[in-house]
Amino acid sequence: MAKPTPLSGFPEFLPADRIVEQQVIATLARTFELHGFGNIETRAVEPMDQLLRKGETSKEVYVLKRLHDVEGDAGMGLHFDLTVPFARYVLENQGKLEFPFRRWQIQKVWRGERPQEGRFREFTQADIDIVGRDVLPFHHDVEVARVMVEALSQLEFLPGFRLQVNNRKLIQGFYEGLGVRADNGDTDKVMQVIDKLDKLPAEKVAELLVSDAGLTGDQAAKCLELATIEAEDASFVEQVRALGVESALLEQGLAELAAVIEGCRPFTSPTIRVVADLKIARGLDYYTGTVFETRLTGFEGLGSICSGGRYDALASDGRSTYPGVGISLGLSRLLVPLVQKGHLSASRSVPSAVLVAVNDEESRAAADLVAQQLRASGVPTEVAAKADKFGKQIRYAERRGIPFVLFARPSSESGEDGPMSFEAKDIRTGEQVTVDPATWTPPTADLRPQVITKEQQS
Amino acid sequence: MAKPTPLSGFPEFLPADRIVEQQVIATLARTFELHGFGNIETRAVEPMDQLLRKGETSKEVYVLKRLHDVEGDAGMGLHFDLTVPFARYVLENQGKLEFPFRRWQIQKVWRGERPQEGRFREFTQADIDIVGRDVLPFHHDVEVARVMVEALSQLEFLPGFRLQVNNRKLIQGFYEGLGVRADNGDTDKVMQVIDKLDKLPAEKVAELLVSDAGLTGDQAAKCLELATIEAEDASFVEQVRALGVESALLEQGLAELAAVIEGCRPFTSPTIRVVADLKIARGLDYYTGTVFETRLTGFEGLGSICSGGRYDALASDGRSTYPGVGISLGLSRLLVPLVQKGHLSASRSVPSAVLVAVNDEESRAAADLVAQQLRASGVPTEVAAKADKFGKQIRYAERRGIPFVLFARPSSESGEDGPMSFEAKDIRTGEQVTVDPATWTPPTADLRPQVITKEQQS
Repeated sequence: MAKPTPLSGFPEFLPADRIVEQQVIATLARTFELHGFGNIETRAVEPMDQLLRKGETSKEVYVLKRLHDVEGDAGMGLHFDLTVPFARYVLENQGKLEFPFRRWQIQKVWRGERPQEGRFREFTQADIDIVGRDVLPFHHDVEVARVMVEALSQLEFLPGFRLQVNNRKLIQGFYEGLGVRADNGDTDKVMQVIDKLDKLPAEKVAELLVSDAGLTGDQAAKCLELATIEAEDASFVEQVRALGVESALLEQGLAELAAVIEGCRPFTSPTIRVVADLKIARGLDYYTGTVFETRLTGFEGLGSICSGGRYDALASDGRSTYPGVGISLGLSRLLVPLVQKGHLSASRSVPSAVLVAVNDEESRAAADLVAQQLRASGVPTEVAAKADKFGKQIRYAERRGIPFVLFARPSSESGEDGPMSFEAKDIRTGEQVTVDPATWTPPTADLRPQVITKEQQS
Repeated sequence: MAKPTPLSGFPEFLPADRIVEQQVIATLARTFELHGFGNIETRAVEPMDQLLRKGETSKEVYVLKRLHDVEGDAGMGLHFDLTVPFARYVLENQGKLEFPFRRWQIQKVWRGERPQEGRFREFTQADIDIVGRDVLPFHHDVEVARVMVEALSQLEFLPGFRLQVNNRKLIQGFYEGLGVRADNGDTDKVMQVIDKLDKLPAEKVAELLVSDAGLTGDQAAKCLELATIEAEDASFVEQVRALGVESALLEQGLAELAAVIEGCRPFTSPTIRVVADLKIARGLDYYTGTVFETRLTGFEGLGSICSGGRYDALASDGRSTYPGVGISLGLSRLLVPLVQKGHLSASRSVPSAVLVAVNDEESRAAADLVAQQLRASGVPTEVAAKADKFGKQIRYAERRGIPFVLFARPSSESGEDGPMSFEAKDIRTGEQVTVDPATWTPPTADLRPQVITKEQQS
């Protein structure tokens, strides 16, 4: 078999980089569970009618076909996000779940994209959602934002980030107060045009608001003014009111957005910002209130790494409706570029903190026993594969980044037949101490591989 | 949308049962990493020519097809085990891996089976393997056996198990010593017939050995005698020698098997058995030495839950060959029946150890602060969703199995305006104590949900 080449769009990590991903996942999971979110794992496939339910045939789905099935496909496809399976799981198990139901889910999703630079066809998402039966109090919007901000802030090796929050009621209410008609879809059109502020100059967007969305010049100007408002506290409320537009829906939106921004403030810092950003709309029509996007500082080109919002009907079965609020972190979108560009790596490629050297094959059993003593103290330990010369065993450890080599001091050195003595050598410093394998452990910082940043490497 | 029904062959867990699976995975991962095994995660898909490389067209593979692709399938299928992807990963990254390379991998695999009771179409496997470049010392066979036995024995809530070990060199060498020809495939045929001892009476197998595998009656009798030998120590060696058959390969197999059995003995107990079982052959032709199977005590009907062995060529690229030894635990095969039949569950359905009650919506922020204090001490905590009557909030906790409810004592009760005081109520016993949320934590055993067995439930 020739050397295989990577499949475009299916990123895989080398062992050291996978350690980064493992630690990120463990940190996220720990934070989510501290907040009472339970984990679920759903199957990789959903029936095709579910996957295409929202009419999203633009989504490239991988359809499954059994190899020996001549009759056609299996009627199933790989899920393209974790929201469709979650909605199905909630309906399927509604009688067995307690609502409000909090769940976290970290799994791979697939999109049948054409192979293309930077496009993933398989990637990992980390979602949290809270779903209620028929009702879901607004304070859960604040909760999911706080939990995700806290989770991201625990990843200390990440650059800073900026959670941008807006509220569809606020936008919708503002447009209504301006006299833009909602019933013929004009407000949706306005949002779509405003969304182009990232790419087009403001004057061009103003023109489009008039030509495409049917606004007057004054209305267009107000919409643009609204979209420029940003604040890291509730001061945006007064800025909006200063525009002189009024509606009950707008007031509700302002109050909700202010509550999210104020609720997140205890978790902000100079590098962790939570901002009311009134141009964020999230194109998806199922969001009905709070909406989130997140940019990584210095890596804005990645787009939003973490998005979500409130939906009044995550799922519905005719008898009950299940409103929800959630945020989805694009774990691969975040980590793959940071790792591939060398911004993040791990301090070693194996879990082992200690290599137990082997003097000769006859003493392998003794080395195994010593290793077992260390493991009993929680120290990841491996035993040298071969009774090579000592220098070669040191290099074995070095190549893997294992910080300590433990070896039995040959009794000939001490010149007597006393109890065997052991030395632990820190191969980074060369420092060597006599240790008792039953009690010695490396320093805590060396027990697990550390995630290191580019700055720390150089 | 109507209530969805489960998809046959795609098991999913309810939250409490998923907690069992999470804890099993965490325990396995911890043990594997204590032994220096690093984690990798490979993509879900492999090129079809890889999946069918071993000529295993009998395996039902799910082929992928892009929804909008009219040209045919994508040339990729979902992996049906973790060995094919691992072999590909090793070849693809050979220049970047350190050998011997130890890895653990826990992922889902898929088989395009027809829907059928008890047949999984998606399931989770937990594999450990050690792979070398060109050479891999035999002692690693002992190592993987020890690691898996240790990992399984950490799952204290499992019934006991029995690891059955054999060695293909031993069987092959014995047949050779008997004069069975290996070059025309007779030894393979003998193994296939011996494999039927599970289902057929010994006399019938003896007949087949003569009629199908071309043995003489004497040869058949010796083969049957060999297959009945079982021992939990190296005493099987003498039993085999007593059969009077000799060959160099047999001797090597005897020595290897004895080393595995003796190497595992420190980890055995009355419920954890490691047995030389000379009828185990593992049909797959790529095993070349040690072979493993495992039966769960009292659940022998599940078949082997954990199998593997040594292969001299896990992968090869013409320049180098990569020998390996590994064991694969069928996590779903083990857990799905135990959970579905109610043998295992978790003590609660959420991670939360504490529910902070809310007296009224005005005091929600205060309740959030208290919850944050508990989380800072590592206590998974949620805040009541609604300011219901206190009894209702207790029932909210009860339904989820949350053991403690924390609430602020109304100042009217103490009749003064002193500092706010908090009470923690163990809702299982009704016991209630005054606590300081900055320092109080529940007993360690209550911090995480516990896996409980049927016996513990009743």
